[in-house]
Amino acid sequence: MTIETRAATVAPVLPVAPTALKPLGMKDIRIEGGFWGDRQQLNGTSIIPHCLHWEQRVGWVNNFSALVRGTLAEERTGREFSDSDVYKLLEAMAWEIGRTGDAELQRTFDEIVELIAACQRPDGYLNTKFDNPGQQPRYTDFEMGHELYNVGHLLQAAVARLRTGFDEDDLLVQVALRAADHVCDVFGEGGLNRVGGHPEIEVALVELYRATGESRYLEQARVFLERRGRGTLQDIEFGRGYFQDDVPLREAEVLRGHAVRALYLSAGAVDAGVELGDDELVDAIERQYQRTLARRTYITGGMGSHHQDEAFGADYELPPDRAYCETCAGIASVMVAWRLLLARGDLRYGDVIERALYNVVATSPAEDGKAFFYTNTLHQRETGATMPTDEASPRASGSGRAAWFEVSCCPTNVSRTFAQLATYVATHSEEGVQLVQFVPGTVSATLRDGRTVTLEVATGYPYDGNVRIEVLEAPADAWELSIRIPQWAEGATVDVGTGPQAAAAPAFVHRGEMPAGTVIDVVIPVTPRWVHADERIDAVRGCVAVERGPLVMCVESVDQPDGADVSRVQVDTSAPLSPTATGVEAQGWHLALPEEGSPYGTVPPSPERRPAPVRFVPYFSWGNRGPSTMRVWVPVGVE
Amino acid sequence: MTIETRAATVAPVLPVAPTALKPLGMKDIRIEGGFWGDRQQLNGTSIIPHCLHWEQRVGWVNNFSALVRGTLAEERTGREFSDSDVYKLLEAMAWEIGRTGDAELQRTFDEIVELIAACQRPDGYLNTKFDNPGQQPRYTDFEMGHELYNVGHLLQAAVARLRTGFDEDDLLVQVALRAADHVCDVFGEGGLNRVGGHPEIEVALVELYRATGESRYLEQARVFLERRGRGTLQDIEFGRGYFQDDVPLREAEVLRGHAVRALYLSAGAVDAGVELGDDELVDAIERQYQRTLARRTYITGGMGSHHQDEAFGADYELPPDRAYCETCAGIASVMVAWRLLLARGDLRYGDVIERALYNVVATSPAEDGKAFFYTNTLHQRETGATMPTDEASPRASGSGRAAWFEVSCCPTNVSRTFAQLATYVATHSEEGVQLVQFVPGTVSATLRDGRTVTLEVATGYPYDGNVRIEVLEAPADAWELSIRIPQWAEGATVDVGTGPQAAAAPAFVHRGEMPAGTVIDVVIPVTPRWVHADERIDAVRGCVAVERGPLVMCVESVDQPDGADVSRVQVDTSAPLSPTATGVEAQGWHLALPEEGSPYGTVPPSPERRPAPVRFVPYFSWGNRGPSTMRVWVPVGVE
Repeated sequence: MTIETRAATVAPVLPVAPTALKPLGMKDIRIEGGFWGDRQQLNGTSIIPHCLHWEQRVGWVNNFSALVRGTLAEERTGREFSDSDVYKLLEAMAWEIGRTGDAELQRTFDEIVELIAACQRPDGYLNTKFDNPGQQPRYTDFEMGHELYNVGHLLQAAVARLRTGFDEDDLLVQVALRAADHVCDVFGEGGLNRVGGHPEIEVALVELYRATGESRYLEQARVFLERRGRGTLQDIEFGRGYFQDDVPLREAEVLRGHAVRALYLSAGAVDAGVELGDDELVDAIERQYQRTLARRTYITGGMGSHHQDEAFGADYELPPDRAYCETCAGIASVMVAWRLLLARGDLRYGDVIERALYNVVATSPAEDGKAFFYTNTLHQRETGATMPTDEASPRASGSGRAAWFEVSCCPTNVSRTFAQLATYVATHSEEGVQLVQFVPGTVSATLRDGRTVTLEVATGYPYDGNVRIEVLEAPADAWELSIRIPQWAEGATVDVGTGPQAAAAPAFVHRGEMPAGTVIDVVIPVTPRWVHADERIDAVRGCVAVERGPLVMCVESVDQPDGADVSRVQVDTSAPLSPTATGVEAQGWHLALPEEGSPYGTVPPSPERRPAPVRFVPYFSWGNRGPSTMRVWVPVGVE
Repeated sequence: MTIETRAATVAPVLPVAPTALKPLGMKDIRIEGGFWGDRQQLNGTSIIPHCLHWEQRVGWVNNFSALVRGTLAEERTGREFSDSDVYKLLEAMAWEIGRTGDAELQRTFDEIVELIAACQRPDGYLNTKFDNPGQQPRYTDFEMGHELYNVGHLLQAAVARLRTGFDEDDLLVQVALRAADHVCDVFGEGGLNRVGGHPEIEVALVELYRATGESRYLEQARVFLERRGRGTLQDIEFGRGYFQDDVPLREAEVLRGHAVRALYLSAGAVDAGVELGDDELVDAIERQYQRTLARRTYITGGMGSHHQDEAFGADYELPPDRAYCETCAGIASVMVAWRLLLARGDLRYGDVIERALYNVVATSPAEDGKAFFYTNTLHQRETGATMPTDEASPRASGSGRAAWFEVSCCPTNVSRTFAQLATYVATHSEEGVQLVQFVPGTVSATLRDGRTVTLEVATGYPYDGNVRIEVLEAPADAWELSIRIPQWAEGATVDVGTGPQAAAAPAFVHRGEMPAGTVIDVVIPVTPRWVHADERIDAVRGCVAVERGPLVMCVESVDQPDGADVSRVQVDTSAPLSPTATGVEAQGWHLALPEEGSPYGTVPPSPERRPAPVRFVPYFSWGNRGPSTMRVWVPVGVE
């Protein structure tokens, strides 16, 4: 049974002020199968139920009912941000209900929301970890208390409701508006001069402004953003850079500190900059993000080199075996890139999004949607143990995906992102449509003067680079179709009916009459290629990676002859790369390595080796076939 | 003014059971100037007063007087192991008093001991963090409470007193014996079946047994060692391997988890194994330590690749820029190697000790002895800020040495090690003397039948490889002189009066008549050399290091033409290395590197470069000339 959702535009990011490009909603874009359609399906059937099961099992939903019952002091479980994980799951459900109209999911949603609503104080404050009987008072730990962070995710869930056809009668929306008003009352200009240790409230407030028109929320986001970087948070072991409170937002040069914090903050700053017409702010974030992409980003699009503080490292400090690359940071990077794409109209951000989606976000969930990587290493040296399916992992990282974590931000973040995926596929402008991602399905957009374009896209991407676009509906006169051409796509062509034309990054743009029935054939060659790294990424000197289309590939021990450990593998870059069904085969060697003895000596090591094929599989797929070792960057052997 | 200390043998490690080699004490070995003599001097004049100043300033000494005054609940400062830092400083003072007879230091020592003694409970329990008014009860946090760890360091300080001529009348010794008896009462066989989260009590109990003859202490050490690895400690985020409670001691294959914990435990296990005649236990530790040296040790001898849990990484996971290499782990590795050297009579452990002393322990203190590295990175990418001299650093790592830390285990550990340094210089046996380290001064030993040997050693080592040994006193008949030859010392010679003879690692052994007046000339070539790493140490592929004698060298930006950042440097390994006063000059290039743009691409980078000298300085000396960047492993450029 399905329910009817009412809004035509269902998108998580929906600027009010003019932007170079405008987003489309889930009602405008339908994904039909393929790589991402399968994941949307998995989300509905497996990931959402799995997250709900665990949030009930570990007591995070119960925290709300215990507060209602008056037994919170005895019963509360989870960290200070466990409320946010419930809100993130509600957000995922909200988008999913908007996408599918699932009535059963709606009932589950309603039950949880009723519990939450019953916990809200008359002044709008809402938290199961602070200010209740037996707990620390509210607003006594801005560094680690996550109170404003929790509210941010509550607001985002409400935005999802408002964008999927519900209005201020919706109970969750009512709760969120009261919470947002409370935040404005307490933290407004002249109020408590504090910011939250974990940004999130900023991006949420802007979107709530966009969804309601209440400019007070935008103003509060502005206040939080301007207040940051002025040392109102305590100096901690990792320094104030950990929560971006070291340097005012406009003066920073690069993202630093805790990666998810830095990226959520950046996303909120771009949103606020757009709505306030504050180009200087958007410029500042774009500059910082560009430098981060150039110097502090893994080949997968993953960010964060430090386990200790979940932080960016120094420029070019990108060790594959210590890659943190938190799944949430990958999602947050997509959020920033998407906002910059809209604000600047620069389709190169589509490359950034594609890289992070295929190689970080898609890597996190197991094939069955019931286990997740929290961190995404690029080099697994030890096979490790099989992870239990019925235990929450106390570890945020490891060789296998875990069913659940004590800090479990990632699974629900993956879930809400999968539910929204369609909105990242295309954008529109007065003049035309921009196809940003290659996904089978349909795209509809309304151009200037109400002229409508509907496209049907068919493709086996990313394994097959042929993309067939059929115009189902179009204005009679000229309109503009832009197709992102990835920077790596050497030899791409587009045929608008007049024969293949060379198409170069960042986009192929065709303006002309393309009536219904027009077929545009795009070829994005997904030929496997060797990839080299900048000299300064010391940790991968002498190594190469393999990419195939948008997919970063990896070598996994289970695929090698004799299951050879990946520390024994070298590739021959002078030999060709051959695509297989979903993988790539290279030529190289297996090394015979000594077991013991000093690892340092005056004679360069020259271990014996024998020729062997080296088999690459998509990085996102690794770790689904039992314990294995894996590496993305592989040493180059010289013939 | 000096006081008279009474014991002839003053050594921190003094086995009772037979060992292949026997240690000598500080009264047997005098260091006269040179590299280590300067550091002993610095310890007395600067490091000990500096540590005392800070322990008073941050309130860790005051914790004891506040407990006496009844104001501890309001006044206590420091972490759960701050008592141990006071004890470690007392241990350093005790050895220093034993070495120099400093009466003023003795008075300071006595004042602190009186405070501590007044805090001890009638049953022997002593701790300023647990079980006092307003605090958590004793023995409720074995994972992180550090109660047994604190007692361990108390015992070690008492051992230093017993070994420097004081007896059971000494107040600190009385306190320690009561504390040790209490531990045996509570944790003995049949008692509380627990172990301490941070090993240290084990090694201390064995030494207290050795110093007192009380076998109950040895038995308690045995019980703690056998009890470990059986999961009595909680599983934490990092797993039970963090505190070596994952696998029983005899069954483990390699050191793992928190490096200092693993190494202190190993030291205690070798001690207990020796005293119990338990060769299987010593074998197990030797095997684990050998594998650790082969796979989990940096070129400096430093151990620990993880900042997050201060832990060993996987095999060959040795990123220079994320090297943790805690100073205390370097010291603890010296402790293990020294015990294995004595137990096995294998002078190759002298190489291990030499490497860690010159390249980890000597690196920690600043030239003025008033700031310390806690971690010892092998690659500093950013210059960072100058560290304040009047603030305790909240950070355990950084680009500069810090005056003090919240976790300040390293400064007092350096101090107690410097005070004991003489005892690592030589050993003896029934038949002769073994010169393990090349240090100017005198060595005296009593061989079989009371025959005495006294040697005078003159050398400018490590900068000069000539070591002149003059026999000042010797038996009339044949005796044996063994001289460690480092594994790296190609072309070493020894002239016992008959012309230079080739000498190869691990030792040159000469048996014969060497009466007083005999001069033995040793040449240990300290020619600079290129050093290569095992294929599997991925993080330094394509790089080389330079060593000169026992010194690992590094490239520091302040020494390069134009102060070039170390990310721009390549060396030419086909060109010669030239020694300078204390450094090495190589030939190479400076690279011109692009400022922005994607760091990944299908074309191998080939940045422009121009020839330039590349200047190396000893790694231990880096960071003493203001903020700089630094690296030990330098990329090889190909002509």
